[in-house]
Amino acid sequence: MADLKSKFLQVYSVLKSELLEDPAFEFTNDSRQWVERMMDYNVPGGKLNRGLSVIDSYQLLQEGRELTEDEIFLASALGWCIEWLQAFFLVLDDIMDGSHTRRGQPCWFRLPKVGMIAVNDGVVLRNHIPRILRKHFRQKPYYADLLDLFNEVEFQTASGQMIDLITTIEGEKDLSKYSLSIHRRIVQYKTAYYSFYLSVACALLMSGEELENHIDDDYLDCYGNPETIGKIGTDIEDFKCSWRTGKADTANVAKVKALYKELDIEGVFADYESKSYEKLTSCIEGHPSKAVQAVLKSFLGKIYKRQK
Amino acid sequence: MADLKSKFLQVYSVLKSELLEDPAFEFTNDSRQWVERMMDYNVPGGKLNRGLSVIDSYQLLQEGRELTEDEIFLASALGWCIEWLQAFFLVLDDIMDGSHTRRGQPCWFRLPKVGMIAVNDGVVLRNHIPRILRKHFRQKPYYADLLDLFNEVEFQTASGQMIDLITTIEGEKDLSKYSLSIHRRIVQYKTAYYSFYLSVACALLMSGEELENHIDDDYLDCYGNPETIGKIGTDIEDFKCSWRTGKADTANVAKVKALYKELDIEGVFADYESKSYEKLTSCIEGHPSKAVQAVLKSFLGKIYKRQK
Repeated sequence: MADLKSKFLQVYSVLKSELLEDPAFEFTNDSRQWVERMMDYNVPGGKLNRGLSVIDSYQLLQEGRELTEDEIFLASALGWCIEWLQAFFLVLDDIMDGSHTRRGQPCWFRLPKVGMIAVNDGVVLRNHIPRILRKHFRQKPYYADLLDLFNEVEFQTASGQMIDLITTIEGEKDLSKYSLSIHRRIVQYKTAYYSFYLSVACALLMSGEELENHIDDDYLDCYGNPETIGKIGTDIEDFKCSWRTGKADTANVAKVKALYKELDIEGVFADYESKSYEKLTSCIEGHPSKAVQAVLKSFLGKIYKRQK
Repeated sequence: MADLKSKFLQVYSVLKSELLEDPAFEFTNDSRQWVERMMDYNVPGGKLNRGLSVIDSYQLLQEGRELTEDEIFLASALGWCIEWLQAFFLVLDDIMDGSHTRRGQPCWFRLPKVGMIAVNDGVVLRNHIPRILRKHFRQKPYYADLLDLFNEVEFQTASGQMIDLITTIEGEKDLSKYSLSIHRRIVQYKTAYYSFYLSVACALLMSGEELENHIDDDYLDCYGNPETIGKIGTDIEDFKCSWRTGKADTANVAKVKALYKELDIEGVFADYESKSYEKLTSCIEGHPSKAVQAVLKSFLGKIYKRQK
């Protein structure tokens, strides 16, 4: 596993070098340095769970067969595409939220000399994904499906983000708009598709599976269930979407936290979490393929009772 | 021609309706209204030259054969994808530049209630392109080529924009960095690919042509020529990239304008323009296909001696 992570990180270096020599653009020295610094700052600094999950999932789908170096490289490249997608969204989200730090360092747009250029940098990061896919997957029979997949998930993520943004327009503290149905859509579209579905879908495509055979039945029925999906996102655990008032007002925040304690939200959540876990497990065990079951259970294991 | 434009505008309504009912996302009423308003505000308000050029070019490539309704619809849909791409870039550029107006109205991000949400709105506009392509072109043999084309041109545009931004970082008035070579890259990558190449390439793909057969020889040799490409962009005509100092300083701007007059920049440009026109014409006449010649000459005619 430590070995897999170091292999995964090596693939980052390869992809980075390729992007910095992309023949579709004539880099100046300054712009090449800018992009390198921008990628290093924003792409590889997270936990890399999403990216690594592509390799894990692909391995499980091969039912014990050892992966070739080429397969590990390709699964890693898809994993990195997900990390790139996340970097793109985080760079832009931080600008929109006016955030100060991310992953223990100042947000990219907060750096002197960066500022609003970060908007275009986010776009450049997003554009790296099809460059990577084209270079390594153009000849694969599932190439168009891969492009469709990344396009669809990006569309869903941006749409979820949109609902989140327009429901909480600054200055409008109209909480009556914030229904459970809207909350479910936000976590499902803004977070779940790119954080969970995308890794599995990449692994399935690489294994030669048609996504339609899996998505409608398994993903949407199990994971798309309103009662279930709320658990899968991290936002309930982080209490992020549940209260929106008094962002910069410490007194209000303290009151909300006291209310949560009084209502024993943590206890309610623990109960909800274990019930969801059982429900999902039995749903997963209904899938005809043992290998797909293993992939989904592996995901569930990663997020069940996690602390952060 | 007036008829063609009204047909083109009708296709906008069709595409808009489809996007607002996209089954990949569960719109709330508020978010559907938001997207509709955002599209209407940002997508169709320009001159539509880029979009209309796809139909023109496709028509010329058919060498006199009358187009079917289906062909007109598809060429229009591709044209609208270019207009959508432009809208995406303009919404974000206006934020980065801190602009106030665009196409005779306040920039989208300047509207009350919009603000930084415009960053995500730009991303949503960009995401509409693959939704349109998937709905109408998924079964075409050139589907993957279309996705590649839009991806490559977006990458080139964002990369050109990056050079422009980092060369003129606010506060750093180091004009020594602003060489002719950098200027050429900015106009070529930031403007020319999506403004000229993309329309022709869309029409070629729809006609069943392989882009490789045309791009390397014709486009890059003729249009990519450093002395030539500067003309094709509008930026020299607009004097946009040529002077960068004193953005908000009227006295400086007046001095620069006086200097231009003294140097007879307009005369120099008129001379350069007519020489470029002759050079391009002879280059175009070297192309083996009369139909492709007609397409390229039609483009040249649209931009030669134009006033705005």
